[in-house]
Amino acid sequence: MSPRPAPRKPVRPARAGGRPGGPGARGPQRSGGERRSSSGRDFDGIGGDQVEGRQAVLELLKAKRRNVQKIFIADNQDSSDILDAIEFEAQRQRVQVHMISMTRLDKEARTEGHQGVLAFAEKLKTVSLDQAMSKKQPFLLVCDGVTDPRNLGAMLRSADGAGVTGVVLPRHRSARISPTVTKTAAGAIEFLEFSDVGGIPTAIDQMNKQGILTVGLAGESPDSLYDLDLGSGPVAIVVGGEEKGLSSLTRKRCQKVVSIPQMGKISSLNAGVALSIAAFEVARQRRVNKSDE
Amino acid sequence: MSPRPAPRKPVRPARAGGRPGGPGARGPQRSGGERRSSSGRDFDGIGGDQVEGRQAVLELLKAKRRNVQKIFIADNQDSSDILDAIEFEAQRQRVQVHMISMTRLDKEARTEGHQGVLAFAEKLKTVSLDQAMSKKQPFLLVCDGVTDPRNLGAMLRSADGAGVTGVVLPRHRSARISPTVTKTAAGAIEFLEFSDVGGIPTAIDQMNKQGILTVGLAGESPDSLYDLDLGSGPVAIVVGGEEKGLSSLTRKRCQKVVSIPQMGKISSLNAGVALSIAAFEVARQRRVNKSDE
Repeated sequence: MSPRPAPRKPVRPARAGGRPGGPGARGPQRSGGERRSSSGRDFDGIGGDQVEGRQAVLELLKAKRRNVQKIFIADNQDSSDILDAIEFEAQRQRVQVHMISMTRLDKEARTEGHQGVLAFAEKLKTVSLDQAMSKKQPFLLVCDGVTDPRNLGAMLRSADGAGVTGVVLPRHRSARISPTVTKTAAGAIEFLEFSDVGGIPTAIDQMNKQGILTVGLAGESPDSLYDLDLGSGPVAIVVGGEEKGLSSLTRKRCQKVVSIPQMGKISSLNAGVALSIAAFEVARQRRVNKSDE
Repeated sequence: MSPRPAPRKPVRPARAGGRPGGPGARGPQRSGGERRSSSGRDFDGIGGDQVEGRQAVLELLKAKRRNVQKIFIADNQDSSDILDAIEFEAQRQRVQVHMISMTRLDKEARTEGHQGVLAFAEKLKTVSLDQAMSKKQPFLLVCDGVTDPRNLGAMLRSADGAGVTGVVLPRHRSARISPTVTKTAAGAIEFLEFSDVGGIPTAIDQMNKQGILTVGLAGESPDSLYDLDLGSGPVAIVVGGEEKGLSSLTRKRCQKVVSIPQMGKISSLNAGVALSIAAFEVARQRRVNKSDE
């Protein structure tokens, strides 16, 4: 992660707004607190157009998967390798970098965790569920009503690490890829493929028909995750939100509904953590199977 | 988790402060924003005296491990099973419940995630490292400079679930059990045993001498967690903070330093998630060993 040697500090660009057509720095949607939603419309894509946090912005640039309109960096920050790397990559790719005051960046940002860096980019593109299912050895993460952006971000970060090949999000009742998600996912959204679907139960039906093992996680299930063969075929891990878990219809459609056996007293895992453990169990079993070949 | 049937709404108690000697509602230390530290002193125990969030407060009551001085609940909240359960348990244990306005509760709370419930309790007690190591089959979590309270809370929540028998915290360079930790840990602190030590490297030395397998987690290690036998003997998982990881001295003292193999592009896990995966791998291997006996 260390940057190329000796990137020069960029000259401070003019303070004016971005490109014509880009999200204007003083546009009407940029005027409030931290928890604005990006759109009043019912469905407007999965988001991802405002990326906050150092790692998230660096990975956005490194991935080169979507057009980056401009980057805001707060001036007067202590120098750091990752800030240098962001500036270097941005210069190389001719992305505008605006050095602005931390006060103004605080206003532009929609999270508290922006770490002095913020990027505006093209929205994330999606692929169809058919495309997601046609990968060589699909490993899907299906989110059923994960409304907490920090949980969704944590899930995406772990999904990338565990080798998930596609993320399935419902068009409603789900967190979009908001700035909080981009920050928490620490860049993972730039490498994952997303599919948005009208309904999760129908999507699970389609996966079942394609021979994908659909596994719902539900803390109260008596069946153990560890009794499943997750390593030898295509698999989809289906997770619900922290509060409500899987919807009853989703649960019915899953071929297996399992829990992660608990040894303690409180018997409940954070939803993002539960998904992480399950996803890395898939990764572990796949690796064992490979080394047995 | 559903409460006994029909707990009555408690009568609204007087708005005055708590018991003589308890943390006064208008005491000098209760006057500021959210991120106060609980003490200006250098070391004053591991904390835990202010517990925020519904699950955390309910588990505090259910555990009955420490004296609860009083509970604040915001009035005008939608009724919920868990609020009823808190009120029921508090009445049963004769703990004062003060119904106060959400505005005042916001002021008393030190986190944003208090969910309208806040308790003041006796500080958490600690046990010596020798006591922690003398459990039948010790499974220790050793935190080396975990300064982010949300990470520490997430680690503790997972530690309880994975069957950790003791948590070792350094007296310096570590998050205390602050209200954010209590909230994120969702009650786990009430059931875990804590040891505070002067230095982590020395503590690891002592564990090594006791025959405990000390395993440091470091993302950049070429050795895999999954190649270790974690299931047949006493084990300690050693984790560092999100930013800096393990200190070099800690790393040297660990018998093994391993990573969780990454399949994705960003190759970095959240520190709390990494600990969760490792701790549940210990639990999984212990279960496999047991069923083989």
